[in-house]
Amino acid sequence: MSPWALKPCVVNLLSRTRTKRKVTLFTTRDTFDGKTVLELRYEAYVPMAIGCIKSICSSRSKWNLKSIVVAHRLGPVPVGETSVFIAISAVHRTDALDACKFLIDEIKASVPIWKK
Amino acid sequence: MSPWALKPCVVNLLSRTRTKRKVTLFTTRDTFDGKTVLELRYEAYVPMAIGCIKSICSSRSKWNLKSIVVAHRLGPVPVGETSVFIAISAVHRTDALDACKFLIDEIKASVPIWKK
Repeated sequence: MSPWALKPCVVNLLSRTRTKRKVTLFTTRDTFDGKTVLELRYEAYVPMAIGCIKSICSSRSKWNLKSIVVAHRLGPVPVGETSVFIAISAVHRTDALDACKFLIDEIKASVPIWKK
Repeated sequence: MSPWALKPCVVNLLSRTRTKRKVTLFTTRDTFDGKTVLELRYEAYVPMAIGCIKSICSSRSKWNLKSIVVAHRLGPVPVGETSVFIAISAVHRTDALDACKFLIDEIKASVPIWKK
């Protein structure tokens, strides 16, 4: 899945929440143990990962959000491509930004997806 | 300029900072005075707006950032499309997220671009 294959997710999110403010965020590649890498490979225990992401998203009531889309790539991800995709729509920008930060931190910390 | 016409900006940002963590953010449409709108029109005093955005970006030393790209559309922007585009690359996700929040808040507060 290329990062730009996510366009339909964004278009769908935007069209469902017309006239509301939206924030879309892509986070991509980091170094791995300080070494330069050509690609990373992500592996997951998929059912648990999906459950865990849904559980994290259920914290949404902390903010006034309209919609959340989360996608995490698995398998090889070349350097420079998106690995995690988060799109949030909300009436207020601050809610979307704060929720986005919470989501990426929690996803990185607690979802059973491993880098190789 | 469609939001997806910004893809080259993102690709350029990503390719210039290989192996670093990146965050890309699009903010789009809000309601206007609580009314449903079909499109907004943005007008700017362009030289001052560019200077003001550059000045805001010069606050980057508060965080450890690699690159910043900021774009603001002018003229008509249909509902559901991106009006402001911010892409930031940084070693640490938190720097990119915090800088992004600062940038969008400052751009909205102080750059001479008006909604009609």
